[in-house]
Amino acid sequence: MALSVEKTSSGREYKVKDLSQADFGRLELDLAEVEMPGLMACRAEFGPAQPFKGARISGSLHMTIQTAVLIETLTALGAEVRWCSCNIFSTQDHAAAAIARDSAAVFAWKGETLEEYWWCTERCLDWGEGGGPDLIVDDGGDATLLIHEGVKAEEEFEKSGTVPDPNSTDNPEFKIVLTIIRDGLKTDVRRYRKMKERLVGVSEETTTGVKRLYQMQETGALLFPAINVNDSVTKSKFDNLYGCRHSLPDGLMRATDVMIAGKVAVVCGYGDVGKGCAAALKQAGARVIVTEIDPICALQALMEGIQILTLEDVVSEADIFVTTTGNKDIIMVDHMRKMKNNAIVCNIGHFDNEIDMNGLETYPGVKRVTIKPQTDRWVFPETKTGIIVLAEGRLMNLGCATGHPSFVMSCSFTNQVIAQLELWNERKSGKYEKKVYVLPKHLDEKVAALHLGKLGAKLTKLTKSQSDYISIPVEGPYKPAAYRY
Amino acid sequence: MALSVEKTSSGREYKVKDLSQADFGRLELDLAEVEMPGLMACRAEFGPAQPFKGARISGSLHMTIQTAVLIETLTALGAEVRWCSCNIFSTQDHAAAAIARDSAAVFAWKGETLEEYWWCTERCLDWGEGGGPDLIVDDGGDATLLIHEGVKAEEEFEKSGTVPDPNSTDNPEFKIVLTIIRDGLKTDVRRYRKMKERLVGVSEETTTGVKRLYQMQETGALLFPAINVNDSVTKSKFDNLYGCRHSLPDGLMRATDVMIAGKVAVVCGYGDVGKGCAAALKQAGARVIVTEIDPICALQALMEGIQILTLEDVVSEADIFVTTTGNKDIIMVDHMRKMKNNAIVCNIGHFDNEIDMNGLETYPGVKRVTIKPQTDRWVFPETKTGIIVLAEGRLMNLGCATGHPSFVMSCSFTNQVIAQLELWNERKSGKYEKKVYVLPKHLDEKVAALHLGKLGAKLTKLTKSQSDYISIPVEGPYKPAAYRY
Amino acid sequence: MALSVEKTSSGREYKVKDLSQADFGRLELDLAEVEMPGLMACRAEFGPAQPFKGARISGSLHMTIQTAVLIETLTALGAEVRWCSCNIFSTQDHAAAAIARDSAAVFAWKGETLEEYWWCTERCLDWGEGGGPDLIVDDGGDATLLIHEGVKAEEEFEKSGTVPDPNSTDNPEFKIVLTIIRDGLKTDVRRYRKMKERLVGVSEETTTGVKRLYQMQETGALLFPAINVNDSVTKSKFDNLYGCRHSLPDGLMRATDVMIAGKVAVVCGYGDVGKGCAAALKQAGARVIVTEIDPICALQALMEGIQILTLEDVVSEADIFVTTTGNKDIIMVDHMRKMKNNAIVCNIGHFDNEIDMNGLETYPGVKRVTIKPQTDRWVFPETKTGIIVLAEGRLMNLGCATGHPSFVMSCSFTNQVIAQLELWNERKSGKYEKKVYVLPKHLDEKVAALHLGKLGAKLTKLTKSQSDYISIPVEGPYKPAAYRY
Amino acid sequence: MALSVEKTSSGREYKVKDLSQADFGRLELDLAEVEMPGLMACRAEFGPAQPFKGARISGSLHMTIQTAVLIETLTALGAEVRWCSCNIFSTQDHAAAAIARDSAAVFAWKGETLEEYWWCTERCLDWGEGGGPDLIVDDGGDATLLIHEGVKAEEEFEKSGTVPDPNSTDNPEFKIVLTIIRDGLKTDVRRYRKMKERLVGVSEETTTGVKRLYQMQETGALLFPAINVNDSVTKSKFDNLYGCRHSLPDGLMRATDVMIAGKVAVVCGYGDVGKGCAAALKQAGARVIVTEIDPICALQALMEGIQILTLEDVVSEADIFVTTTGNKDIIMVDHMRKMKNNAIVCNIGHFDNEIDMNGLETYPGVKRVTIKPQTDRWVFPETKTGIIVLAEGRLMNLGCATGHPSFVMSCSFTNQVIAQLELWNERKSGKYEKKVYVLPKHLDEKVAALHLGKLGAKLTKLTKSQSDYISIPVEGPYKPAAYRY
Repeated sequence: MALSVEKTSSGREYKVKDLSQADFGRLELDLAEVEMPGLMACRAEFGPAQPFKGARISGSLHMTIQTAVLIETLTALGAEVRWCSCNIFSTQDHAAAAIARDSAAVFAWKGETLEEYWWCTERCLDWGEGGGPDLIVDDGGDATLLIHEGVKAEEEFEKSGTVPDPNSTDNPEFKIVLTIIRDGLKTDVRRYRKMKERLVGVSEETTTGVKRLYQMQETGALLFPAINVNDSVTKSKFDNLYGCRHSLPDGLMRATDVMIAGKVAVVCGYGDVGKGCAAALKQAGARVIVTEIDPICALQALMEGIQILTLEDVVSEADIFVTTTGNKDIIMVDHMRKMKNNAIVCNIGHFDNEIDMNGLETYPGVKRVTIKPQTDRWVFPETKTGIIVLAEGRLMNLGCATGHPSFVMSCSFTNQVIAQLELWNERKSGKYEKKVYVLPKHLDEKVAALHLGKLGAKLTKLTKSQSDYISIPVEGPYKPAAYRY
Repeated sequence: MALSVEKTSSGREYKVKDLSQADFGRLELDLAEVEMPGLMACRAEFGPAQPFKGARISGSLHMTIQTAVLIETLTALGAEVRWCSCNIFSTQDHAAAAIARDSAAVFAWKGETLEEYWWCTERCLDWGEGGGPDLIVDDGGDATLLIHEGVKAEEEFEKSGTVPDPNSTDNPEFKIVLTIIRDGLKTDVRRYRKMKERLVGVSEETTTGVKRLYQMQETGALLFPAINVNDSVTKSKFDNLYGCRHSLPDGLMRATDVMIAGKVAVVCGYGDVGKGCAAALKQAGARVIVTEIDPICALQALMEGIQILTLEDVVSEADIFVTTTGNKDIIMVDHMRKMKNNAIVCNIGHFDNEIDMNGLETYPGVKRVTIKPQTDRWVFPETKTGIIVLAEGRLMNLGCATGHPSFVMSCSFTNQVIAQLELWNERKSGKYEKKVYVLPKHLDEKVAALHLGKLGAKLTKLTKSQSDYISIPVEGPYKPAAYRY
Repeated sequence: MALSVEKTSSGREYKVKDLSQADFGRLELDLAEVEMPGLMACRAEFGPAQPFKGARISGSLHMTIQTAVLIETLTALGAEVRWCSCNIFSTQDHAAAAIARDSAAVFAWKGETLEEYWWCTERCLDWGEGGGPDLIVDDGGDATLLIHEGVKAEEEFEKSGTVPDPNSTDNPEFKIVLTIIRDGLKTDVRRYRKMKERLVGVSEETTTGVKRLYQMQETGALLFPAINVNDSVTKSKFDNLYGCRHSLPDGLMRATDVMIAGKVAVVCGYGDVGKGCAAALKQAGARVIVTEIDPICALQALMEGIQILTLEDVVSEADIFVTTTGNKDIIMVDHMRKMKNNAIVCNIGHFDNEIDMNGLETYPGVKRVTIKPQTDRWVFPETKTGIIVLAEGRLMNLGCATGHPSFVMSCSFTNQVIAQLELWNERKSGKYEKKVYVLPKHLDEKVAALHLGKLGAKLTKLTKSQSDYISIPVEGPYKPAAYRY
Repeated sequence: MALSVEKTSSGREYKVKDLSQADFGRLELDLAEVEMPGLMACRAEFGPAQPFKGARISGSLHMTIQTAVLIETLTALGAEVRWCSCNIFSTQDHAAAAIARDSAAVFAWKGETLEEYWWCTERCLDWGEGGGPDLIVDDGGDATLLIHEGVKAEEEFEKSGTVPDPNSTDNPEFKIVLTIIRDGLKTDVRRYRKMKERLVGVSEETTTGVKRLYQMQETGALLFPAINVNDSVTKSKFDNLYGCRHSLPDGLMRATDVMIAGKVAVVCGYGDVGKGCAAALKQAGARVIVTEIDPICALQALMEGIQILTLEDVVSEADIFVTTTGNKDIIMVDHMRKMKNNAIVCNIGHFDNEIDMNGLETYPGVKRVTIKPQTDRWVFPETKTGIIVLAEGRLMNLGCATGHPSFVMSCSFTNQVIAQLELWNERKSGKYEKKVYVLPKHLDEKVAALHLGKLGAKLTKLTKSQSDYISIPVEGPYKPAAYRY
């Protein structure tokens, strides 16, 4: 792999597929801005004061049109930004091109190899002299992981002279991470520690990354403050639910053109993502069956008329399989062998290990026929029947379609902007320790409020006497912290 | 008012409408037991050990068929029980009769006056010599309120010799409470304090009562431990949501036979109750408009295609109005005057003050025409048009129909049984202080699990390796405490 | 059986349950009028001209509140009316009372025996001297049947002197019909022929009756013109579909209070009635399975995500069974024996023979426990488990609830009024032969138009140039005759 | 325009975008076959007998993957086939390539000019010596139109020597038709009459074409028999309804990525297409408003909770506008000027004149910005706000997505195969006159039956006694001709 950074005429670094797509990206950015009222309101409210003046922000988050509007909101507030994607298939090349040309350093393209992916991540974190970023926007936690692993390796190296051994792991991706860190040690033995020292904090976008953060918090391994954006109501109950309700059928249709009506669809997991997927499939006329480990979520599905069975019960009868669990080993190659011809298998959960891609790829005699990019038919030698796997088991809505639509991402990303502002503004106050925080309720409600006007909504106002009666301030917050919505 | 307690042949006290309805009640109880697998599982699991042996339980909770199954679960576990309803219209007389005859002391009938209501509450708490109950099952907090007000009055009386003055309040209901307490002081100046001393704790069923408890906890006024059953997921996200989705249209249809399809329906509030109501109306073919103060809930409604407007915007165009807020003064008489002829106005929120019944009743020249019990047409003198008010502004699903169906109440009431067991088992351990507690997640999940078999569901089991991967025990709990479902 | 006709102070005949319910009936009539804009528009448009002056109308159609508004529309247009119900359980006694007291001769009460039912039908057709009615409003065709069978018997008697032999049939209901005709022959051998001669025509309400009419038309047996109201779009695609969508869950809830969410519900038949039922159950959260003989209807169900199986496949797993076929022998006693404990079995199709009530009643050792009127639990001796049968297998929405709501019945009944007017106005023109007719499209569209204002709808108008372009008159009709909507 | 026909190595003519896409097309054809059980069943049932041996079939119907499976079904039954698309944007180039290479003469590509479009149509009908095709598969009636206009011109020319004058019409498309015919007259004055003489008949796919046929039938202008495939239930109630329910959101999402949830969407027309569109938008979370001229369809929408307003009422508030009427001048430039910024305007009805594209294109100062092919933003000079028009006002589901999915097209196209077989088999029997016919009910039911197995459905069978009772043969047809489904 010999990747080289390119530079714009103004000297900003980038590596994208094709800079000439920048005009097309800009046109779509213009459309997206109209659909992202929360971000535009942030520009209007905070832009004049330039609160991010002097701040370096590194982002590792799907490099899409919507993310481009986020990036240009951060720059509109004064930040310098470097960016990479958090998924090898999720970059929209025209979005990357527009940002690279106009606004920030971007290292991302659709269809990276794993080596390229981590090269991009490293580039994104590398601000040259003076260490790394002041702030990180993370999705899934890979940027955070790299720094933590880097620091660990440096400390080990300082202590014992040992360098990380890529062969110590079977995980092909972690092998790459260790290689990068090992190679980094050769040029600067304090590289990641310098990053850590400069870092004010990270705001994390998604369930998987948040889970990692809480685990690090628990073991005391967390090196800097983190804001859990995922658990803002206006993120997890919107982007996960309504976003997937939109983008799951979008991905299915673009990838396969299959008629959803009449089909039997299995959704593995009935969390917010699963709820959105099941709703979309049901509404499109599929008969939906859900698999669940959690009896409460299972009972919720049943109350919507959705059957709860195990994957084994239905594996040979269903037409569409969607994993949404955030866990691993949900659909194994042994399941796939038993499926109907041309059953569709896809993942919208987070990592590709929800589907046993490794088992599939190494199945003796299996044949892969690529219908089109991100749509592969895998034919089993015994039966000559095939299954259709989307996006190589990675996020199908980003790999096969364009991810969540702008409006719902505006909710998520307005939380990101607010979280980044909060970390930056409080960087010297000591308000945030090396722990994981959620945004306070009133900011969550503010994010929602910024999105109502676009939809023509008119809120009711509490009277003073009503406010007294229920002991809730007229201007909110309106719910206790534990309220479930 | 000269009410007198009656006695069964076995000497148990009661006051119900008609004991001869006991056979009918028993038949419906038999049906309900099949629909309440959680309660029946409690009988099977805990019954043999008779854990409530020696416990006196007083309950103030709608005296319906479902509650009857709860009561007989408590007695099956060894408890002695006294019961009253927490709403003047919600008693099902055949249920009350069956319980009075067979299982517990009941003081409840459909259509109590407010005086009768509080007489029943007092009877329910009065266990004769030795003070009051060991445990309270409360709904809306009236039993808890009476004890707290009683204790306050006794302490004031001891200190200053002052007795409560019913004329010190404008609230007609509180006037009655004060009268009862005042009269009680004449016979026993330690009556409520004795109750308090014996009391192990209360488990509270509903949002309104829980709110009162937290307020008392905050001011330090809470006299005994309380378990907040309402905020068990298997309660608030089931009974409130799916229960109302069932019972709102049921009440509308029984009261008015009105066709819901094609109508414009306004739902005030989009919490769990509002969500259930809006879903039911939408599915039945109404065009639903929601009013909200909370931008997050408003945005949720919008994502379901529901318009958010203020009541003023739509008051003269809508056909059906439902209050679900838990607040007061939602629909005022000035709104009602502007409504279409035969617009339907009802409340499923908690208290009747969501609708300005007082304003309506005292409106000059207004005429009330009772179509049938709980269905009144109020005609305004200026326009000669009328509106139809259900259940006199009280809970329309209990006043006009039969409340929530058995299956969903089995979820709620299994939480009650578990909460009562927890309080009783830990009565000497000091585990519970004078605070408000929620049940731990694993018990919440257990409640759900007890209801899956009846619906033919089959859960998936985590493998050891999956359990390790996501750091969640194979047997649960499966979600963090703040998870929103 | 010794039934006797009663008379109002004005001398009009009647036989109802309780005339004192007339006031209550009138209150509900007042409400219903507001919900029946089509009928009220007919009163306004045609009333002044008194087009039915001199016409005698006999109706055999569920004697409900909605039918009462129809009757008073007919009388408002100048007709004299006699009425009976077409179902032994469907009469609403307060509606019958109000009409009997105020407007027409009524012979109907809830819970007639079969003998009483046919006595009422005969009374309804008997106008004393001068033969029978000029016009019949029929539902299911029983009034039409009686006249046809009567005429046949009279002709046979004239020819051969033979009188009908009730023992010639096994069908208990037809036995009664033959008895009535036989007894009638004793007093007047030309009774039914006189009726036939006077009769201008019949308008038939429902699928079953229409099917009978077409069969008679085919064999040449039809004795007078008939208008098929059922196949007006504004009847069959509204009342059957939206009416049942409303009244099926209403009946289920009133009869059993069962929670529909989470249950498995089997709908036998996916015609308009079945579509309405399936939609209602699905929306309430049941998992719906449909049985069908017709592959087109089956494919429609599949497109909505509904599984198509045979009754045998699901009989032991489902919780709710609904027949909607218009055929017989759908659910047999052998099916019922295999059902889960407390499975609910009901019919909304037309006749009670969709369910094998005879097989159930005569099953050796079976025990019937009446929970409440129209709700019976039948316990099988082998298993001691029981099933719950609604309305004794007859129309459950009319037996257990109040039938279709006013608004949708206004569509159906406006068609009836227009059909009756058409028959009456053309009685001398020869326009209608002894055949079955449907109303012309423009009248069907008119019925719909009369119902839009109440729902706040605003139609678009064709421009002249658009009208030319699609060759459709500006004022309609807008669709070809075969259009399916 | 200088288009030239190309030839495959086997000598078959074609003109497509890029023959090298044939492999990709073949892969998608393989997938589609699995989703088109009706067509595959036709191959299995009829293929061996080669019924189309000797038949020349010309088709003018969107050249998509699904149509490719139709074409190869016709060739599998022995036909020779020539094909063109019936819409300038609807061709899928990889489908055209695969068919051109492997199976039939194809003249079609995505993005034809109108001149190119009619050149393709002419090529499709031109079988060289011996006149034209034996059979036509038509969609919208353009092939049929060309022959009828050609014959008319030739007869006029023979009579009066007059050639058609393209300048006699303002309609730019008809100008091209006249030019082609005029030029044709120069080479062969009997060209179209020879076609007519050979022609056995046409089967027409869609509402618009069917309407034209009935108009010609009425005036006696129809030159050959026609089978109206559109009005097979398994076509119009499936493809129009369920097809659009699938492909409308697909087109919206691919073209604009806009979030549908929360938006206000206006659907003009509530026929089958409008019903499918409204359902899709509602289910995706939009608030849907329908405009209608027909009161019956309007009342149907109201029963689903959909508001009926005029376009004028909502033009400035809605976000998405969809025309589905089959009429012209639905959304005029004056409407478009009043829309919100970035309102989306699209047509799924049939012709592009539902939207006033001409008014838009000629609006003074308007600016067109092409975001990507088929997605244009038109900016008005006064407001600088723009609207987004999809597929230049033509069928957006074909222009912006891939049209209806395979499964539903299998229903439609199985009707086409059966219709073509019927015409061909009866070509000498005189069964079909120069009229428009629909397929008999039993064939319609057969089409449905062929699609049930794929969805796992199991039909119920009538017993003999049930069949007798309802006078319907055990094997069907199950419904009278006028049944509306």
